[in-house]
This record gives sequence, structure tokens and C-alpha cells, in this order.
Amino acid sequence: MPALRNSVELTQVSEWEDGKRRNVEDYLAAEEPLEIRVGGRPLTVTMRTPGHDCELAAGFLRTEGLIDAREQVLALRQDDGESGARGNRVEVELEGGIFDPEPMQRNFFSASSCGICGKASIEAIRVRGLRAPNPEFKIDPDVLCGLPGRLREEQEAFGRTGGLHAAAIFDVAGKLIQVREDIGRHNAVDKIVGWALLAGLLPLSSHVLMVSGRGGFEIVQKALAAGVPLVASVSAPSSLAVKLARELNLTLVGFLRGRRFVVYAGPERCLPAR
Amino acid sequence: MPALRNSVELTQVSEWEDGKRRNVEDYLAAEEPLEIRVGGRPLTVTMRTPGHDCELAAGFLRTEGLIDAREQVLALRQDDGESGARGNRVEVELEGGIFDPEPMQRNFFSASSCGICGKASIEAIRVRGLRAPNPEFKIDPDVLCGLPGRLREEQEAFGRTGGLHAAAIFDVAGKLIQVREDIGRHNAVDKIVGWALLAGLLPLSSHVLMVSGRGGFEIVQKALAAGVPLVASVSAPSSLAVKLARELNLTLVGFLRGRRFVVYAGPERCLPAR
Repeated sequence: MPALRNSVELTQVSEWEDGKRRNVEDYLAAEEPLEIRVGGRPLTVTMRTPGHDCELAAGFLRTEGLIDAREQVLALRQDDGESGARGNRVEVELEGGIFDPEPMQRNFFSASSCGICGKASIEAIRVRGLRAPNPEFKIDPDVLCGLPGRLREEQEAFGRTGGLHAAAIFDVAGKLIQVREDIGRHNAVDKIVGWALLAGLLPLSSHVLMVSGRGGFEIVQKALAAGVPLVASVSAPSSLAVKLARELNLTLVGFLRGRRFVVYAGPERCLPAR
Repeated sequence: MPALRNSVELTQVSEWEDGKRRNVEDYLAAEEPLEIRVGGRPLTVTMRTPGHDCELAAGFLRTEGLIDAREQVLALRQDDGESGARGNRVEVELEGGIFDPEPMQRNFFSASSCGICGKASIEAIRVRGLRAPNPEFKIDPDVLCGLPGRLREEQEAFGRTGGLHAAAIFDVAGKLIQVREDIGRHNAVDKIVGWALLAGLLPLSSHVLMVSGRGGFEIVQKALAAGVPLVASVSAPSSLAVKLARELNLTLVGFLRGRRFVVYAGPERCLPAR
């Protein structure tokens, strides 16, 4: 798995337990800056876990509304950043030649919310023209309940650290199609969307997006950009995530654990009518 | 607690359990955009949980290096954002009159990592002149082990939703000094630092910062900006957080659970010499 080679780092740490100290080796989730450049100009810097960086760049451009289709991406090239850090830069060439990131950067003054990029309101989402996902999609509640276990199995196969978030795509039968991990929840989603984009699978109108963290506003927004009809998470969504999901009729499932889940929006896709 | 009035929202959801569906009411962590303006011009938009918004603005300015001292803040005023949403804007007046956010915005193109704001490398932190925190600070390992329980007690007193992160300040004896919650980990830290700034308590050179989520790069960077000598978390730090903490000799503790913790940097502040 060369793509995972930098995703964890081994380091010496001190462990204290019940009065006893010992030095041990521990795996850390790798976190390094990735600069995404478009047409030779800097667009964004994101702190990410190295691996699948071209997918991350492509997915970011897609979920942030800078591109609509795979064909617009003429080339993706990973090289070393200015500091010389290996592979910490992705250059994107887009159709139409030079791309002017300035108008976008002006909206990029997000601070702690990651990926909102100025689209800080549902109004802005509406302006962007995001549409309601596939109304025909339906999934059996029993299938839904099986997803966290499948994702966990997949993560455990590679997981040596507790610090990574996952985003996974499942089909309607509960088959895991692809999974991506990152120290940032939004990056994990951008990586999986970028994978789907480059594989020609967008929109993901017959798939479920499962995320390991909470389903916030920006996760729902990214899911809508990818055409996903159902987003599931093991924990709680935010109020604005629920509002956006209801507004655009995306099905939002939270607290998916064991034989129970909570549906915050669009219940008709996963619950029997009553 | 008027400051908490908007921090949760009640909504109707559908719960599915073992084949049975029922409609219930559920609390959601509130998430709304906050625009921070300086000198009448927009500086940043962050998705946050409403409450303690002036502290959030002040803390953000401090941890991002835009101000050094409380005296530079002439006024903080909360009003309604352009969309009319109540209280979603904080206007800051800084000493020295009109402040030009342009050079800063150019570095604000962070995407998913929250709060890195272009300071995507340890070199940039060095340029900013952040210094190593108090080398004299020491805390007993047994006291450290008591912190998560104290924080949990405090959160449970107000907590009706699983979606909020917490940041808390403790003194060397393990007394909880103040706690702030937010849907974003970085916002919770900015709120607590802003509280300390406005209370005239910075630098927090004899205190511990405890965060509920993982200790990433930006959390360590914000802690350094506030002069905190020890950051503790119940989960894993990232590789870059560890590098930065080691570089600037901040003590970084992770997996603080029960009678065990792991020290990733600066063990002399919390472990017996050996």
C-alpha cells in the first residue's frame, strides 16, 4: 500500500500508568500541509494525512463547486512543496487555461469550520445551484445497521492509530465500495469524492456516504455536491446540517450504532412508510 | 445561563430501533455562521455554536496573532448578520484605527484543517515569534488523571447533546477555572482563550488546557499563543502537533483516561525524573 506509506509515523513517547513510567514506541496519525495549486497559482493549503493527495485535490475542487466534471481536470501532478517537503503540493491544470482563484480566495476566510469557505449559509448553497439528490433511492434499515461494522473492519485492517477519520461509499446492498482516511473529516470526504470523480462515478446517486465523525453542515454540503442521497454517521449532526438536509431533501442519519439509528431528514429513503 | 440559550436546538426526528419506528424530540448542537469584522471590514466567517461570541472573536484575534494584548481591543459589539440572523456578527474595534485585513486574508485560504490560516508549517510559527512556555511549570500525574472526570461533570451539568467539543482551563491543583463548548474544537479553544484575554489572565503560564477532541497542530499553536505550558487530551495528537510541541517545548499529553496517559512532548512537566 504505497499510498499509506506516510499516513502514520512512529515515535518515542513516555507512557504513565498507575505511577509507573515507561518509554514506548507509538504510531501517530501523520499530518502535513498540502498546497493545492490551480494553473500555477496557489488556491488553498490544507492540513491533511499524506496519501491519495491528487484525489483530495480533485475532490476539493468538486465539492467546493470549482469544477463540475472530470473532463475539466486536464492534469493532476504531485510534487514537493516550497519547504522541500516531499509530495506536499498538487498542481491542477483545468480546462480553459488560466484559472483565477482570486474571487474564490476572497470567500476562503473560513476559520474553524473547515470547508465552509464563505458558504456560511443555506442561502449561499441555494445560489450555488446544488440540487436535491435522487428521490428514488431507498435502503433497508437492516442494511444501514450493518455499515458501521463493515467500515470498522476495513479501518482495522490498516489502522494503527486512533487519530484518523474515515469516509466510505456503500452501495444499496451494503457493499463497501471505497474508503478513505484522513486526520480531517472534510479531507476524508474530499478524498472519497475525488476518487469517485476520477473514476467517473459521479453523481453518487445510488450510494450512501458514511462518515466516522459527526455530520456537520459542510459534510452535508459536500455530499450534496457529490449527489449522494443519504449520509450516515455514528454520531450527532449539527442544527445547520439538519436544516440544509431538510431543505434539499438529503437523508441524514445519525447515531447509527448497533440496531438503532436516528433519521434527521428525508426518512422516506430508509424507513418504512407508516 | 443566557449565553447558552442558543447552544442547543430542539427538533422532531424519527428513531428506528430493531424494526420499530417512532417520532421523538431530540436536541441538536446549534451551528450558525459568525462573521468577525475588524474596523468595519469582514475578517473571517466561522461556523460556531452561538454563545460567548465576543470571547470567540477576541480569542481568535489573539490565537491567530493579530493582537498581543487586551488593551488593543477597544470595543467588541455583537449584532445581527446581513441575513438578519440574530447575533451572528461581532464587530471589533482595534487600537490604531482602521485595520487592514487584506494581507491576512491572503493567508486565510485554509480548507479543512481549521485555524491553520496558511501557517501550515512549523517555520511559519517560528516566524511568528511564538515562544516556549513556562519551563518551571510542573503538575502531579495524579492531578492530571483527575481532569477528564472534572470536565465531564461540568459538561454533563449543561449537556443535552453529544455534538459539542469542550476546552477547559485548570490550575496546577486540578481546579477547573473555566470551560467553553462549541461544535468546533478550535472555536472552543478560541472561546476559552478569549475569555482569559478579556479577564486579563494571559499568558496562562501556570495552567493546563484540556481539550475534548484530538490535539492537532492548530490546537498546539493556539495553546502556544496563549502561553499554556501543558495541553491534555483524551485522544491522539497528530504527528505535526507533536513536532511543534517538541520544537517549542510545550508539554503534550494524550490518551488521558483513567489512571493512564501518554506524554508526547515535554515529559519533565508531568513525569518524575528517572
